[in-house]
Amino acid sequence: MKRQVKVGIVDTMFARVDMAAFAIDEINRKFPGTKIVRSTVPGVKDLAAGCVILDKKERCDVYLALGMVGREPIDTQCGHEASIGIQMAKMKLGKHIVEVFVHEFEGKDDKDLYSIFEDRTRKHAVNAVLLASNPAELSKFAGMGKRQGRADAGPLFQG
Amino acid sequence: MKRQVKVGIVDTMFARVDMAAFAIDEINRKFPGTKIVRSTVPGVKDLAAGCVILDKKERCDVYLALGMVGREPIDTQCGHEASIGIQMAKMKLGKHIVEVFVHEFEGKDDKDLYSIFEDRTRKHAVNAVLLASNPAELSKFAGMGKRQGRADAGPLFQG
Amino acid sequence: MKRQVKVGIVDTMFARVDMAAFAIDEINRKFPGTKIVRSTVPGVKDLAAGCVILDKKERCDVYLALGMVGREPIDTQCGHEASIGIQMAKMKLGKHIVEVFVHEFEGKDDKDLYSIFEDRTRKHAVNAVLLASNPAELSKFAGMGKRQGRADAGPLFQG
Amino acid sequence: MKRQVKVGIVDTMFARVDMAAFAIDEINRKFPGTKIVRSTVPGVKDLAAGCVILDKKERCDVYLALGMVGREPIDTQCGHEASIGIQMAKMKLGKHIVEVFVHEFEGKDDKDLYSIFEDRTRKHAVNAVLLASNPAELSKFAGMGKRQGRADAGPLFQG
Amino acid sequence: MKRQVKVGIVDTMFARVDMAAFAIDEINRKFPGTKIVRSTVPGVKDLAAGCVILDKKERCDVYLALGMVGREPIDTQCGHEASIGIQMAKMKLGKHIVEVFVHEFEGKDDKDLYSIFEDRTRKHAVNAVLLASNPAELSKFAGMGKRQGRADAGPLFQG
Repeated sequence: MKRQVKVGIVDTMFARVDMAAFAIDEINRKFPGTKIVRSTVPGVKDLAAGCVILDKKERCDVYLALGMVGREPIDTQCGHEASIGIQMAKMKLGKHIVEVFVHEFEGKDDKDLYSIFEDRTRKHAVNAVLLASNPAELSKFAGMGKRQGRADAGPLFQG
Repeated sequence: MKRQVKVGIVDTMFARVDMAAFAIDEINRKFPGTKIVRSTVPGVKDLAAGCVILDKKERCDVYLALGMVGREPIDTQCGHEASIGIQMAKMKLGKHIVEVFVHEFEGKDDKDLYSIFEDRTRKHAVNAVLLASNPAELSKFAGMGKRQGRADAGPLFQG
Repeated sequence: MKRQVKVGIVDTMFARVDMAAFAIDEINRKFPGTKIVRSTVPGVKDLAAGCVILDKKERCDVYLALGMVGREPIDTQCGHEASIGIQMAKMKLGKHIVEVFVHEFEGKDDKDLYSIFEDRTRKHAVNAVLLASNPAELSKFAGMGKRQGRADAGPLFQG
Repeated sequence: MKRQVKVGIVDTMFARVDMAAFAIDEINRKFPGTKIVRSTVPGVKDLAAGCVILDKKERCDVYLALGMVGREPIDTQCGHEASIGIQMAKMKLGKHIVEVFVHEFEGKDDKDLYSIFEDRTRKHAVNAVLLASNPAELSKFAGMGKRQGRADAGPLFQG
Repeated sequence: MKRQVKVGIVDTMFARVDMAAFAIDEINRKFPGTKIVRSTVPGVKDLAAGCVILDKKERCDVYLALGMVGREPIDTQCGHEASIGIQMAKMKLGKHIVEVFVHEFEGKDDKDLYSIFEDRTRKHAVNAVLLASNPAELSKFAGMGKRQGRADAGPLFQG
């Protein structure tokens, strides 16, 4: 059922962590033989066009859009615009673009923030590959409260 | 007037309840013989592309987009972006995608939240099938204050 | 200059008033002979796709999208998403879709709210027919502070 | 370098001032011989479709979308939806639609508000004609803090 | 690997600083021989259409959309609408449009604000050229916390 996939990674210079390195390492470990291409843009608002442009050249099966959003309210608005752009890009390509955004305010301190970057990126890198290669695998976890960045919330019990 | 329909269900790993199970059970009970296909994505922002991709393979008559939105303000923004993406997907497909979103803050407690998940998903599963098979049936309830998740508000009396 | 038009009405089960009944009655009174088709969807977020799907079958000249928005902040957000979807649908069809939304918080009490439903729907039903049949008629009222739901604000005097 | 242009004006019945009259007067004075067509819609949310529909018939070189936004928060949201629709319409047409919105809360009093309507509409009418006939003219004012509705802010000095 | 590129600059009359002058100077210094075309529009909401219209004539490899956003909440909303329009334009063109927006509230005083204008525009001018000529160059700075307008934030250390 599995098939070899080609993953396109678009990341940013704005982010304060090399998110693509986590994604590439995770994919290489878990899915050796996966083809990876990577492109870097200035910031999150450039990710949507970055995926569309990379797709024209590389025709990947799925994309990872990796970015950080700053802590000011205007940054949150920029992240919102970036996300809407990514929704547009998904429609244009008819493909999944797994958005991995870390908001700077999410971390309690630098160490915590760093761990969110790593955890979220690694988990979504796996999700991206599975969406393209073996989507049935994801249905095993449907409704299970999976989280990226923190520990899973887990399923809700009926109480 | 009724015709057999094919329903596409897209749900998420993020949700803390297996919403698709409610939808499938409800459709099987009320509309036996309905064809159902199902696909799972990581979170609500992936639902729009999930419907478009499922449509390419399965050409369903109608889609159910099932998801949970977290309780933080940033989660509400994510849900908003997901909803705008779903509006784009409806335009692209020219089909109904019945959005079933449960916001984590809606529940007074876990039990209440669980019941919202079940009630909303089951009712909208019926709505989705009727939209595709027998839309005139819905007009009987036009303006009747129908609710999904809670009891109906009912019609407003002129006072 | 006038020509007979075909009006498509899409309304919802969520609304607490039968808005379509007002629209149909008003059009029948003021513009006898107008062809009217009607379709019902669950809630406001389904209106955009409802218009697009109705258009595929009926090719109306103009659409009325009738809906109610609940009183909670999350409802206001849903109404916003619905409106953006309707803007997309207008672009897709290249036709007017007159959006008639009543927000539950607009009414001082049930009676007042009911009167907003009726007034806004009846006036916009007339607007919709004129947009399709005799748009020059609307220019007579340009800048006159016309309101739907309440009495007209009227023109602003230079002071 | 200049060429005769055709300007499409779409205005609303909701506005409390006849904005189109200012635009037409200004264009006739400053650019005699310019062809003007005009169409009126109910409110700001109808402007985007109004431009697209007018374009199908008239193929203008540029459009003016004239409207007023009410003073309540829900009105501001409506204006936002209208603006997003206008952005969509620009993309569809590949033409400029100069949006001239006056928010009711901008005026200190009726007289002040009226003067904003007139000043903004007249100045943007000139901008619209230049965008279509002689865009290089606008570059002379790049970065000069030009304002419509009030006096120019002027350029920022390096301090 | 490098190739000569053609850059399209769209700027505004609303801005209080001649942003295009910084961009042109920077590109001429760093990338002599680069072809530059420039077009001016009234304000930020006109930038998306400005890029699309310039593209029809000039077919640039990449665009810079330069603008200032005022300090009132309604201005922030306008900037938001402008940004969404720019995301639409990127999808339409399948090209990068590097958005360089300066919000008037960002500056502590006029001098500080002016320096943000210059720093952000110059740095993004370089980014735009590299995106079109030598995108691999940007990957060297992926995750390095690059900033435009202020000093770089730098990479986050694991703590």
